[in-house]
Amino acid sequence: MIQIIGIRGIPIVREGDDLAKLICEAARRQGTPLMDGDILVVSHIVVSRAEGRVVDLRDVEPSPFARAVAKFYEKEPELVEVVLREAKSIVRMGDGHIITETRHGIVCANSGVDKSNVPGEHCVALLPEDPDASARRLRRRIKELTGRDVAVIISDTYGRPLREGEVNLAIGVAGIAPIRDRRGEKDLFGYVLRVKRTAIADELASAAELVIGQADEAIPAAIIRGYKYPKSETATARELIRERHKDLFI
Amino acid sequence: MIQIIGIRGIPIVREGDDLAKLICEAARRQGTPLMDGDILVVSHIVVSRAEGRVVDLRDVEPSPFARAVAKFYEKEPELVEVVLREAKSIVRMGDGHIITETRHGIVCANSGVDKSNVPGEHCVALLPEDPDASARRLRRRIKELTGRDVAVIISDTYGRPLREGEVNLAIGVAGIAPIRDRRGEKDLFGYVLRVKRTAIADELASAAELVIGQADEAIPAAIIRGYKYPKSETATARELIRERHKDLFI
Repeated sequence: MIQIIGIRGIPIVREGDDLAKLICEAARRQGTPLMDGDILVVSHIVVSRAEGRVVDLRDVEPSPFARAVAKFYEKEPELVEVVLREAKSIVRMGDGHIITETRHGIVCANSGVDKSNVPGEHCVALLPEDPDASARRLRRRIKELTGRDVAVIISDTYGRPLREGEVNLAIGVAGIAPIRDRRGEKDLFGYVLRVKRTAIADELASAAELVIGQADEAIPAAIIRGYKYPKSETATARELIRERHKDLFI
Repeated sequence: MIQIIGIRGIPIVREGDDLAKLICEAARRQGTPLMDGDILVVSHIVVSRAEGRVVDLRDVEPSPFARAVAKFYEKEPELVEVVLREAKSIVRMGDGHIITETRHGIVCANSGVDKSNVPGEHCVALLPEDPDASARRLRRRIKELTGRDVAVIISDTYGRPLREGEVNLAIGVAGIAPIRDRRGEKDLFGYVLRVKRTAIADELASAAELVIGQADEAIPAAIIRGYKYPKSETATARELIRERHKDLFI
C-alpha cells in the first residue's frame, strides 16, 4: 500500500526561510515525521518564495514589445514583461495565453509565472532558478536535520497538449530517477516489454496533487510513503523533457 | 491521508468473465473490500480481455496500404492493419511509431493496440469499444454485488507530447467528474483562481499506476481511498480530450 500524506501547518513561507526545517517540523507535529524511503513532494511555490523568486510588478519596467503584446492580449504589461524575461522562446500566443519555453526547457503558459498563492497584491512568483538544485538542497538539509534519506520532487501545475485540465508534474528531483526504465522486463505472459519507460516522478507529482491541490487549505507539501523508487544521486528532472524537434506528437 | 491499495490475486481475465466480481472477490480476500467513496482504477487491458477485445493477428488480412506502411517501418503488416482499423485518422508516422487518433479521440501510438499482458503469442488487445460504458457497467455491477458506491476509472499508459516517459491516464470514468473546476475558489491569500481546472481523473490514474505498473506482479486494479472527489453520473472521459484545433501547444 502507498500512502499520500499532506503536510499541514507549514507557516507562510518567506524569503530566506529554512524550508526543509519548516516542513520537517510540521510533519513531526502532525505525527507523521519523515522516514527513510519517503518521497517528499513540494509545490514549487513555497520553494520560489523561500528562494526569493518573487517579483513585485510595480518594480517592473515593461519593454515596448511587452507593452504591445499586453495591449493585444489585454494583459498587464508588467506581467508580460516578467513572462518574456523568464522565457527562452515564445512558442505561441493566442486566446489570452502566452505559451513559452522556459530556460529549464519546459513548454508552458506564462513561463510558469504564478499569481496564486503569493502574498502581495502586485506580486508574482517565478519558477526556481534551478529546481533540481533546489530539490538537492532540500534533500541534503532534511538529511542534516533528521538523518533520514528522503527523495525530493518539486512540482508545478501544467496544462498539457491534447488534454483538458491541468496536472502536477515534476520540475526538480533529488535522490530519485524520474523515469523507471522497464524495457526488457517481462509481462505476465512472458512478453518482453519494449517501450515501457514510466515517468514516475510525474506520476508521483500528480498523486501528491490530490492532497496538495486544495486552495482552501495550506498544504504545500506531501509525503508519499511505501513506493519503492529507483534511487539516483545524479538524476535531474530535465530527463523528463523531450526535445521539441524529437517530438512526433507536435 | 489517501491510500493506494493494489488488488492482488485477480485471476487471468478471459472473454466473458465477470470482471467486477473477480475484482470485488480479490479485494475482499486480501482484507481490503471496496468501500463507499472508493475510487477503483482498472487497467484497460483486463477490461479489453473481459470484453473480448483481443485479436489474433493470424486472422487478420492486411490491406495493401497496411503492407506498405509495415514494410517501410519494419513492423508486422497484420499489426499495422489492426492499428489502422482502430484509427479515426493518422496523425504522424516516423521513427518506428504510428501516431493515430483513435475513434475515442485519443491521440496516441498504435491506436492504443497493446501487445503486452495479452495471452497468446500472436494476440493483441484493442481499447474497449466505449471505455465510459465499460466503467459504468463495472460501477453498476459493483453496486449490485456489494451495495457500495464506488467511482470507476479505466486507465491506460500513454506517451505524451513534450515529455519523456509514459504515464497512466483516464480513458473511461463512471461516478466521478474527471475535471475538478476550481475557478472562482480563493487561494491562501484571497486571490481568486482563474485558470484552475484540475484533471483529477488523470492524476488518479497516474497515482494508481504506482501500484499497477509492476510487470512482474499481476495487479491490474487499485483502490484509491480517502480522496473526496466531485461526483457525477453523467461525466465522461471525453471531457479530458482537447480538440486538436483548439490546442495552443501543437
